[in-house]
Amino acid sequence: MDSPWDELTLAFSRTSMFPFFDIAHYLVSVMALKRQPGAVAVARKNPLSSWFTAMLHCFGGGILSCVLLAEPPLRFLANNTNILLASSIWYITFFCPCDLVSQGYSFLPVQLLAAGMKEVTRTWKIVGGVTHANNYYKNGWIVMIAVGWARGAGGSIITNFEQLVKGGWKPEANEWLKMSYPAKVTLLGSVIFTFQHAKHLAVSRHNLMFLYTMFLVATKITMMITETATAPFALLEDALSRMLFGWQQQFTPCEKKSETKSSFNGTGSSTSKPIAVASDTVKKKHTKKT
Amino acid sequence: MDSPWDELTLAFSRTSMFPFFDIAHYLVSVMALKRQPGAVAVARKNPLSSWFTAMLHCFGGGILSCVLLAEPPLRFLANNTNILLASSIWYITFFCPCDLVSQGYSFLPVQLLAAGMKEVTRTWKIVGGVTHANNYYKNGWIVMIAVGWARGAGGSIITNFEQLVKGGWKPEANEWLKMSYPAKVTLLGSVIFTFQHAKHLAVSRHNLMFLYTMFLVATKITMMITETATAPFALLEDALSRMLFGWQQQFTPCEKKSETKSSFNGTGSSTSKPIAVASDTVKKKHTKKT
Amino acid sequence: MDSPWDELTLAFSRTSMFPFFDIAHYLVSVMALKRQPGAVAVARKNPLSSWFTAMLHCFGGGILSCVLLAEPPLRFLANNTNILLASSIWYITFFCPCDLVSQGYSFLPVQLLAAGMKEVTRTWKIVGGVTHANNYYKNGWIVMIAVGWARGAGGSIITNFEQLVKGGWKPEANEWLKMSYPAKVTLLGSVIFTFQHAKHLAVSRHNLMFLYTMFLVATKITMMITETATAPFALLEDALSRMLFGWQQQFTPCEKKSETKSSFNGTGSSTSKPIAVASDTVKKKHTKKT
Repeated sequence: MDSPWDELTLAFSRTSMFPFFDIAHYLVSVMALKRQPGAVAVARKNPLSSWFTAMLHCFGGGILSCVLLAEPPLRFLANNTNILLASSIWYITFFCPCDLVSQGYSFLPVQLLAAGMKEVTRTWKIVGGVTHANNYYKNGWIVMIAVGWARGAGGSIITNFEQLVKGGWKPEANEWLKMSYPAKVTLLGSVIFTFQHAKHLAVSRHNLMFLYTMFLVATKITMMITETATAPFALLEDALSRMLFGWQQQFTPCEKKSETKSSFNGTGSSTSKPIAVASDTVKKKHTKKT
Repeated sequence: MDSPWDELTLAFSRTSMFPFFDIAHYLVSVMALKRQPGAVAVARKNPLSSWFTAMLHCFGGGILSCVLLAEPPLRFLANNTNILLASSIWYITFFCPCDLVSQGYSFLPVQLLAAGMKEVTRTWKIVGGVTHANNYYKNGWIVMIAVGWARGAGGSIITNFEQLVKGGWKPEANEWLKMSYPAKVTLLGSVIFTFQHAKHLAVSRHNLMFLYTMFLVATKITMMITETATAPFALLEDALSRMLFGWQQQFTPCEKKSETKSSFNGTGSSTSKPIAVASDTVKKKHTKKT
Repeated sequence: MDSPWDELTLAFSRTSMFPFFDIAHYLVSVMALKRQPGAVAVARKNPLSSWFTAMLHCFGGGILSCVLLAEPPLRFLANNTNILLASSIWYITFFCPCDLVSQGYSFLPVQLLAAGMKEVTRTWKIVGGVTHANNYYKNGWIVMIAVGWARGAGGSIITNFEQLVKGGWKPEANEWLKMSYPAKVTLLGSVIFTFQHAKHLAVSRHNLMFLYTMFLVATKITMMITETATAPFALLEDALSRMLFGWQQQFTPCEKKSETKSSFNGTGSSTSKPIAVASDTVKKKHTKKT
């Protein structure tokens, strides 16, 4: 069957990321870096450190997946053209006269276009990570999910870690305790593509890539326009968490009524705040101790 | 010579860890995680992060030894059955209705049994690490000791590191400055098995495994019953440290009488407190600086 | 052409580092460790931790380059003779009666000799790192620069990281934000030797090694005698940074006059202070947040 739909998705799945989508990805990453407080001052004072941070922002996912598979973390440096591309984008972003790039980027349609193209690269990264991990562990589907996730969303983890080493760690950006939306959607995509790769889904890969990318771009752009943060997974997560971790609450005659009960006999997402507060206070105590 | 003793130890050294001893190890690790402040709240609020932490507690030693030998840290994820086993134990420990598992575990004999079986797995890990490192470096006996130690006791280091990244670092759990008893006894075992592997000990491996395991289990259980912390090495360490690092004190006509003298002209372990305090204050100063 | 000059440099480039230069390197590293506050107390209280830290100081560069190329970080432990050499130097440095070693080392000519010999080992490390990375990535010249740099100057990064894990992190020793002089000169040497290795320099390697080593030793000794910190690169850096990052200032009719202007319309190095202060305050805010 060779329907025009198949031809379209097949052509889409064969698109090369190299010049344009990569540029968009680098641009978005570097702009995100530039928005951090003090980033411009660091770039003026110590350009090498700023360049290194920018590279971590651009290639963080690949570095993390390399580390997880015990491959040289420096491999990304061997791809000279991409390095030069990212470096030049870092340079014009930070040192363009009159800050033209930032001013152009502050124009909303440009942001939407760049963000959409960056989301396209995310799909390619997930698929690459899953297939790459499959070369190592034939039916290690947990590894495939983890590597796909790391390559797709590992940049934030790497940059958090780099800020930890630098001393400027922001706990509200903590990826462990509260997964950001990109991390969630990348995990979902990694699971989907792993199942597809293991032939557990009756969908051809190019169709899946097309649909997943469309979903990514649509949600991302809607979130950017309607400046909402969490969006489409709240309901799903609620149902899932109540199904998996809430059913114990039906056993009413339990001794321990204190905190475990108070956590899910409401609408879940709303009543999970007090516990969040609790754990935060606990963390504060730890940090005070240190 | 095929004495019943040999048969016994040989059969013991061929015991498979897989179902039961691994379960005990996972149970002890997950319960240790659950006892940490805020762990239950995190499990309710963000199960994925709690699951990840539990996996680090269960497979930390293997991960660390993989990192030290530049093997994929994700390899432990490729062993699906063990992952599922540990995950289910994590699940029933944290989300069992009425918290039945914890209540059963709080029953002392259960704890003793589980802890004893966990110590058995420690021997197997040390031997595995030593032989594994020997495949890489033929006569690199320091590497063999280090890898055996890492696989046997590396879990605590990994979990400390993970708490450091999470921001909730507890300096009193610091493995660098003050080695815990398991770390000490694992180091001892790693040295012993390395020497045995290098044919410097006239003991067959299965005998050594049996004796070392018995020693581990006995000391562990006695320590759990008579809630003592340090126990059997204090004297040995004292003698060793005075032999290695104390003999300089006989040279009385030295200029610097201040702190070096005050550290060992007593019973060692007792007089080492003031220096500990000193270094702690130094560390406090650093942390204040940061 | 076989001029005496060539014979001299060739013979020099074939010098073996093993016994004497390595000893000087270990001695300088261990003395630097001993000068840290609380190091002696730690050595008395927990010799194993102190020994581990000393090994990190002695072999940090090699460990970092191994990590960057995904080789076993423990490989340095496989070289038993070097380990025993470094360990014995650590032992006599910390536990020699009457602290003879420190007193001998406090004698200036000894320091000069040891520091000079340590700088010689730096050249050998850089060349080794560059050629080693070249085996992995044929024309990945960025990787070659990075690995040569890591092996030559990575010790300070490793030790900073180790102090971070220990909890005693000193932000003023931060290698990211403010590169130390050894880091700068090692980067320069790594770039030079990479170009030479890529046949872009019309100099034979042994000549280059001789000249670079002479430059290293001369600058190091002059810096130690005339206790200056920054020295010979200030002018070069100034010119370079104004050429690369200062030319945007000619475009006067820009909106944003605030901080970008104030940063380079002076003699650069002097006017970069306020920005430094600014970024420091930013970092302080972060650390307060954590």
